[in-house]
Amino acid sequence: MTIDDLSNGEIEALFSLADEMSDSIAKQSKLCQEKIMASLFFEPSTRTRLSFETAMLRLGGHVISAADIGATSLAKGESIADMARVVGSYADVIVIRHPWEGAARVVADYAGIPVINAGDGSHEHPTQTLCDLYTIKKERQTIRGLKIALWGDLKHGRTIHSLTYALARFGATILFRPSPGLEVPEYVLRKLTTEYGGKLERYEALNQVVKGRLFPLDAIYITPSSPHQLAMMPDISIQTELETGVDALYVTRFQKERHTSREEGQELNKDYPMVDKKLLRGKEFKKALVMHPLPRVDELAYELDADPRSMYFKQAARGVPIRMALIALLLGAKEAAISEKSVSFIQKTDYPVYKRESGVRCPNPTCVSNQETEARYIKPEFKMVSLKPLFLRCIYCEQEFHPQYIASSDWHEGRLESKKYHSAESWLVRKIKPENLIIFDSEDKAQARGFKPSSYVR
Amino acid sequence: MTIDDLSNGEIEALFSLADEMSDSIAKQSKLCQEKIMASLFFEPSTRTRLSFETAMLRLGGHVISAADIGATSLAKGESIADMARVVGSYADVIVIRHPWEGAARVVADYAGIPVINAGDGSHEHPTQTLCDLYTIKKERQTIRGLKIALWGDLKHGRTIHSLTYALARFGATILFRPSPGLEVPEYVLRKLTTEYGGKLERYEALNQVVKGRLFPLDAIYITPSSPHQLAMMPDISIQTELETGVDALYVTRFQKERHTSREEGQELNKDYPMVDKKLLRGKEFKKALVMHPLPRVDELAYELDADPRSMYFKQAARGVPIRMALIALLLGAKEAAISEKSVSFIQKTDYPVYKRESGVRCPNPTCVSNQETEARYIKPEFKMVSLKPLFLRCIYCEQEFHPQYIASSDWHEGRLESKKYHSAESWLVRKIKPENLIIFDSEDKAQARGFKPSSYVR
Amino acid sequence: MTIDDLSNGEIEALFSLADEMSDSIAKQSKLCQEKIMASLFFEPSTRTRLSFETAMLRLGGHVISAADIGATSLAKGESIADMARVVGSYADVIVIRHPWEGAARVVADYAGIPVINAGDGSHEHPTQTLCDLYTIKKERQTIRGLKIALWGDLKHGRTIHSLTYALARFGATILFRPSPGLEVPEYVLRKLTTEYGGKLERYEALNQVVKGRLFPLDAIYITPSSPHQLAMMPDISIQTELETGVDALYVTRFQKERHTSREEGQELNKDYPMVDKKLLRGKEFKKALVMHPLPRVDELAYELDADPRSMYFKQAARGVPIRMALIALLLGAKEAAISEKSVSFIQKTDYPVYKRESGVRCPNPTCVSNQETEARYIKPEFKMVSLKPLFLRCIYCEQEFHPQYIASSDWHEGRLESKKYHSAESWLVRKIKPENLIIFDSEDKAQARGFKPSSYVR
Repeated sequence: MTIDDLSNGEIEALFSLADEMSDSIAKQSKLCQEKIMASLFFEPSTRTRLSFETAMLRLGGHVISAADIGATSLAKGESIADMARVVGSYADVIVIRHPWEGAARVVADYAGIPVINAGDGSHEHPTQTLCDLYTIKKERQTIRGLKIALWGDLKHGRTIHSLTYALARFGATILFRPSPGLEVPEYVLRKLTTEYGGKLERYEALNQVVKGRLFPLDAIYITPSSPHQLAMMPDISIQTELETGVDALYVTRFQKERHTSREEGQELNKDYPMVDKKLLRGKEFKKALVMHPLPRVDELAYELDADPRSMYFKQAARGVPIRMALIALLLGAKEAAISEKSVSFIQKTDYPVYKRESGVRCPNPTCVSNQETEARYIKPEFKMVSLKPLFLRCIYCEQEFHPQYIASSDWHEGRLESKKYHSAESWLVRKIKPENLIIFDSEDKAQARGFKPSSYVR
Repeated sequence: MTIDDLSNGEIEALFSLADEMSDSIAKQSKLCQEKIMASLFFEPSTRTRLSFETAMLRLGGHVISAADIGATSLAKGESIADMARVVGSYADVIVIRHPWEGAARVVADYAGIPVINAGDGSHEHPTQTLCDLYTIKKERQTIRGLKIALWGDLKHGRTIHSLTYALARFGATILFRPSPGLEVPEYVLRKLTTEYGGKLERYEALNQVVKGRLFPLDAIYITPSSPHQLAMMPDISIQTELETGVDALYVTRFQKERHTSREEGQELNKDYPMVDKKLLRGKEFKKALVMHPLPRVDELAYELDADPRSMYFKQAARGVPIRMALIALLLGAKEAAISEKSVSFIQKTDYPVYKRESGVRCPNPTCVSNQETEARYIKPEFKMVSLKPLFLRCIYCEQEFHPQYIASSDWHEGRLESKKYHSAESWLVRKIKPENLIIFDSEDKAQARGFKPSSYVR
Repeated sequence: MTIDDLSNGEIEALFSLADEMSDSIAKQSKLCQEKIMASLFFEPSTRTRLSFETAMLRLGGHVISAADIGATSLAKGESIADMARVVGSYADVIVIRHPWEGAARVVADYAGIPVINAGDGSHEHPTQTLCDLYTIKKERQTIRGLKIALWGDLKHGRTIHSLTYALARFGATILFRPSPGLEVPEYVLRKLTTEYGGKLERYEALNQVVKGRLFPLDAIYITPSSPHQLAMMPDISIQTELETGVDALYVTRFQKERHTSREEGQELNKDYPMVDKKLLRGKEFKKALVMHPLPRVDELAYELDADPRSMYFKQAARGVPIRMALIALLLGAKEAAISEKSVSFIQKTDYPVYKRESGVRCPNPTCVSNQETEARYIKPEFKMVSLKPLFLRCIYCEQEFHPQYIASSDWHEGRLESKKYHSAESWLVRKIKPENLIIFDSEDKAQARGFKPSSYVR
């Protein structure tokens, strides 16, 4: 579902298996015989779908494919869960792409067979990230300690979100250079510091020190795994360090089709960065791998195609062995040997879960939990990633938000008849045990459930 | 083409083979090697198409697939017959879904290879019926003597039409509970009594006797095969018998996409029945299998998914072994042993055929014979299912109608110069031998062919 | 890309291999095991796509298929070249259909694996031509010396263009009978005389001599390979010769979807020829094979389907062995034995190439080189097929045009400071060496590049 479903060790093992796959592709043609992969694409995609299907066929398996389901069962009002259960009874593994964030998780919850997320809205596209990481690893041997610049539409690019997490986990430093108005969402940045433990330098600070020839940065994520790097340096030396150049420049296209109508009016692609020969003459790009998840539009000039730094067609080609390795592992056709030393340096955080029926809904309109067909059976569920200030993360789309009102299910020695709600900003929020917390979107919803405003409602 | 193309014995043999397929699915992977199934879907469908394709792949065969042909050759004005002939020269078996009633029959007439109807308009969907019957058989060992309730849109649900015939043939009692305005078409009900020999009790009569907690019924079909059942009882005991409960409750969704524009204005889904936990607490549903062809919308609550009576995901899953068995039989990869005792209790009726070129056309606007591209080569053809009153059944869509005017090709001792036409209501209709009957839609058409009104034209 | 990419000897060898394929189709099922064919259709097509996919599956290979890509990556602004490179890294052979003329050539330029053109706009559809030729060969043993009539929309029918070249090369006489307004494009006719060396009789002349019962002709191409034929005869005997009848009547449908908006207003299908039983009673069609690439609309009556002269379903069926042979050859699974005696009688002409960046663009709006997504990397390139008058042929769409202005890069003993441009009609054009020629679309473009009008600009 997300790149975080695989540990660093599992990813390294997958890369070894992908090496094996590409070294002797003809020898793999019996691995998944008699297995069927269902390829369910609710969004048009040729590249990703054909890459998965090629991978399965190279493993000797079969494919059933639905290339643009938007118009079919959905039109009849069918839910994703129902489709998942039915296709789960036909196939052995499902690959799903869907325009709603969290849709792949729902499929995984109901299918009863392994499910691979091939992109869910603006949320994640973890196998693209595997191709990206694999390419960096093949070209530079390691990811730890590298400086990777991310360019372009960092807001809607789901490949960017998956990649950001993975780079952080493998110990890279990340330089964010969004096109103005297309910054990385705050919940992605927050996760970098709260879960991967690094340090985030924001633009305002950087503006003072990073001047001149270097590209305008929005933020830098400094990994805790590289003590010899920026993390330990005073601000003034960031520029010096950066001027030694970046190891990779990862460019994405303007994701027009994901922009909201409000965004469409803003001509956000007006100052979109353009990567071309001239730019790459800069010494900070001398050794930089030029990467792109494709398709490209105008942000990456064709004149670079023959440049040895250009990696984007290699990234695409490596999708086949990576996906072969992943499918073979999921179908049990191969075992992955996870080496001791490559264990991830980060620990997955175990946040308390909030799933009371108090009317709280994910505020993301394209989250799967907010769709008419899915709301029939999906119960909203959130991770409480922070109490003061109170932040919930939707378990489906992983977007975070700050609800306004709280109450306790165990207040005043259990006297529930005196039901009161309070501002989430109040000092009371930390007094309530997470398991007793009741959260409301709005005063209306609190009152509809019989709660009355306390004196702590501002 | 229709469920009636298979005898009861053949259906039983198919079920045995399906048992064999699902017991040892891995052993079937060489059965149809080197065979190609063409999957031609002129209507969007994911579930049914993927189910057929899975079945063929599990048999070791190959698939060529056209998932939504609406926009392709049809747009170039091609006929179904031409496509059938061409694809028939590529593949070994064709699976066809089409929005026009009777389209599958045309494909079968021209393809030169076995053809499976995967749904033709509102006409039939026989393999869905096989899955339904197979599920009832697996869960209840027999179909004979069971009471099966059909709910919802009984007008447009092609699965309902195929299932109704099959249940009648296997000796079940059928309880029709349509949503108001969405009753089973009259031609389907008529066929029940004229061809399957049972008794049909209509709502008006039932209204007197079936009261209280039981669901409102529109009609009951009482099978002649169950002497110990309703058939032999006086009306007053129907309620008593029904209150012992139904064996299966078969629900269908509101088939919005098949409604005519006139129907759309009527909000026919206003009082659509809803099947949920509360309803199923009624004692008449205590042992009822809850069935649905899927996709569902709102008529079947998600809260029932874990209920052991819920069969709908099993129905879908059983589509694979059923279709494997069917394909293997059609391709000659398996033989079916038809047991002596399971011979159908009904005889197929051999109605006289009417195919004179007297201008009579099927009145169903979505019948394949009425489409511009197909009318170039299809000659209308009808079964004369009744003479007094005169009823014709289109051999393509199987809808029945009552033409207004008749004549004879052998009247007044062969003096054809005195050509006269008469009202179809006239007593003359039984005097004319069926092979001499000339039938007209309208007086205009009769006169255009040189006939003059007789004194028997009212 | 075009039928001219195969020599006559190669085509004959392909036909032998196709014979072998259809004689023992079951023996071919291991030939292309573990190979993958990508089937990329940017235009809807069921017949051609399924024919290719059937061929690959009959050879034991796998297929990845994108049936209607129009809506997918193209919508994201991706170029054909990028898609070709990516899919080229997945598959072993690509089959491409595209609405832009020349698109298949671009795919071939970038894919790095064998590419088969399954139709590119109005340009060519060479595998259809192979099926057509193969059918004539099977039925008549030879193509040389036959008289083949082409009927209908000769303007937009890409199958017509490929077929015309092939018939000329194999020594057939071609009788053009276009529907008025839908004549064969001039560049196709010119190629017949300039490259295949035959003689073209135009309508104006024919009008005088070919009268009466024979169909109205627009032009006759008389092959140089048939000395006993029309070529050597005085005009007056053309009619006598034609009245002995044609060997094949090749009909095409009205290609509505390729008509420009200006053409749409003209009701060009008003006098479209209709081939039916009545027409075929004419003695000139007594032995004629009736051919059609399908789909048909109204130009070919269904009443002919049972006529032994009707070949169109055979043509379609033969697509499978022909495409099997082609794929097997391209993948190196089979060798073709090219016999000595079947060498083509024509020599491919080696025209000088023009690829200076002087602003000359192909005037065909649907040429691949003129598309926004492709113009980013495609440099226009032309063959100079004639100097006086000056004619350029676009290497992508093969349409020819006559640019208006010229200059020389080596004029007045290399004094380039006196840069002048001249009319392309001027006698100077032959004085300039082809490698020094600079060509302009317009005076504006010449002047924008610093050239001044000479006295030879009319």
